Parts: sequence; structure tokens; C-alpha cells
Amino acid sequence: MIIIGVDPGYGILGYGILEKNGNKIRHITHGVITTGKDVDMKDRLSYIYTEFLNLIDKYSPDVCAIESLFFYNNVKTAIRVGEARGVILLAISQRNIPLKEFTPYQVKNNVTGYGRADKKQVQKMMKILLKLDDIPKPDDAADALAVAWCYAVEKGF
Amino acid sequence: MIIIGVDPGYGILGYGILEKNGNKIRHITHGVITTGKDVDMKDRLSYIYTEFLNLIDKYSPDVCAIESLFFYNNVKTAIRVGEARGVILLAISQRNIPLKEFTPYQVKNNVTGYGRADKKQVQKMMKILLKLDDIPKPDDAADALAVAWCYAVEKGF
Repeated sequence: MIIIGVDPGYGILGYGILEKNGNKIRHITHGVITTGKDVDMKDRLSYIYTEFLNLIDKYSPDVCAIESLFFYNNVKTAIRVGEARGVILLAISQRNIPLKEFTPYQVKNNVTGYGRADKKQVQKMMKILLKLDDIPKPDDAADALAVAWCYAVEKGF
Repeated sequence: MIIIGVDPGYGILGYGILEKNGNKIRHITHGVITTGKDVDMKDRLSYIYTEFLNLIDKYSPDVCAIESLFFYNNVKTAIRVGEARGVILLAISQRNIPLKEFTPYQVKNNVTGYGRADKKQVQKMMKILLKLDDIPKPDDAADALAVAWCYAVEKGF
């Protein structure tokens, strides 16, 4: 089973892809989709959507895990991140991929044992858990691997 | 020139379509795209996206006017409305339609002369300005007509 994890954003969107076979979890790839500040928001969304569909078509994930968003100090930022989430959810729906959401607290707690862990801790733990040679970078990609990991280790999955 | 106005939302998304010829502004149609609470969010977004593309393909708007979002008491609602905006902006980008945003204050001020007017005032004014037989309903559709109106009357347009 292939799992794609997503850390939503419009400037940088992180993704991480894992394979689960029985109890074994294997790292496939991770990375980011980035868009420039000088590009029109609607065209940034179109680019994110197209690149994400390309990832789906390349890796054929069976399921998607995404970080849910609850807390933003800035409502304008929350709306912008919501817009990026919107085109990701659309792609997931169009490809009939089951989706599961995890809160940032759940993700951190699952990979570090501490729900308020910082980004560096998450990066370090993903290196250890996935037996990677290096820390996954940038942190957006590490977060995406972490949310995919959550899906993989969830009980009753 | 055909203008499509959008009042973004995920439960109810309002749209209003006007034609501008010189100084004449003519009402073409208005309505809403609705989705059910019991439907998965990603599938609601997919439905909104498909229905909105159908509207674009039916009425061939030259431009799109949309209400910008700034104030939400509830960040979770802001993110959800952002998701709906995301798939609308994606459709607009994919069809290469120029987009202009107006704040709710600008919209109300342009159609009622008062930036804090209530929804009923906006509905009444759209009936008068567009010489309609009835008040446009629901208010989401009236708001969408009002944002399209803003675009139509803007100086230098």
C-alpha cells in the first residue's frame, strides 16, 4: 500500500510518500511543490494542482494523509492555506483516493512522543524511523513524511 | 463583455452573471451551487469545481469578480471557505479568465452607498439596479450579482 502525506501550503507544499507492506514501512520519496510570491494566487493554485496530480499519476498512492489546520493567528493566511488545501482535496476526490486528516498534535505525538515537538525533532525522528542517510529537508517535506507515517502506524489500519 | 460574480462558500456558493455593453449593464442570470453537510468535504469541492466549470462553459464570461475574505470569527470556517475559493480560483486560472477581487465593504458601498449595509439592502438594490421583477434570492446570489456589478461600474474598466 502506497501512502502520500501532505503538509499543505501555498508558498511551499510538502509531500512524502511511503510504502507499507505488512509491518514494514519503506520510504519512497519526499519533496516540495513551491510557488513564487510574484505569481498570481490563482496561477499558483493551478501549478500546485497540476504538480500534485503528476505526483499521484507517478506514484499511484492508495491513500492520502493530510495535516488538518486549526490554528492560525492570521485569518488571511488561514484562507490562503485553505485555498491550497482546496485544490489538493479536489485532486484527491477526482482520483478517488481515500483521505484521512491528522492534527499537527497527533502527527508530532506519533513520531516524537511529544505533541508539541519542534520541527527539528520531527526531522530527526523521520530520519531514524525511515532509516534515511540524511535528515529529510525542508521541514515541510519531513512533516509530510510524518503525516504519512501516522497513517501507516495507525491501529486498525 | 460578460462578467461572472462569485460569493464564495462551501455549503452555498452564489454566482451572478451580467453583460456590459458600453454604459448598459444587463442581467443574464444568477443562482447558487449548493452541497450537502453529509457529503465529504473533498467531494463537495469536486462538485463545486465541476458545476462552476459548467457555468463558465455555458456563459463564457470574459472576466470574474469575487468577494475577498478577510474577517472570520471562526478560523476553521475561514479555512473551509478558503478551500472553496481555491477550486474556484483554479477553474478561473485554467480557463485564463482575468480576476478581480472586491472586499465586502467595497461591494456594499458600490451598490447601496453604505459599506455596512445588510443583506436585504443589497438584495433590494440589485432588484432596482438590474430592473428585475423580483428580489434576487437567495442573498448569496444577490451578493454575487453585487460583486459583478462592482466590476461593471468600476472606473477605468
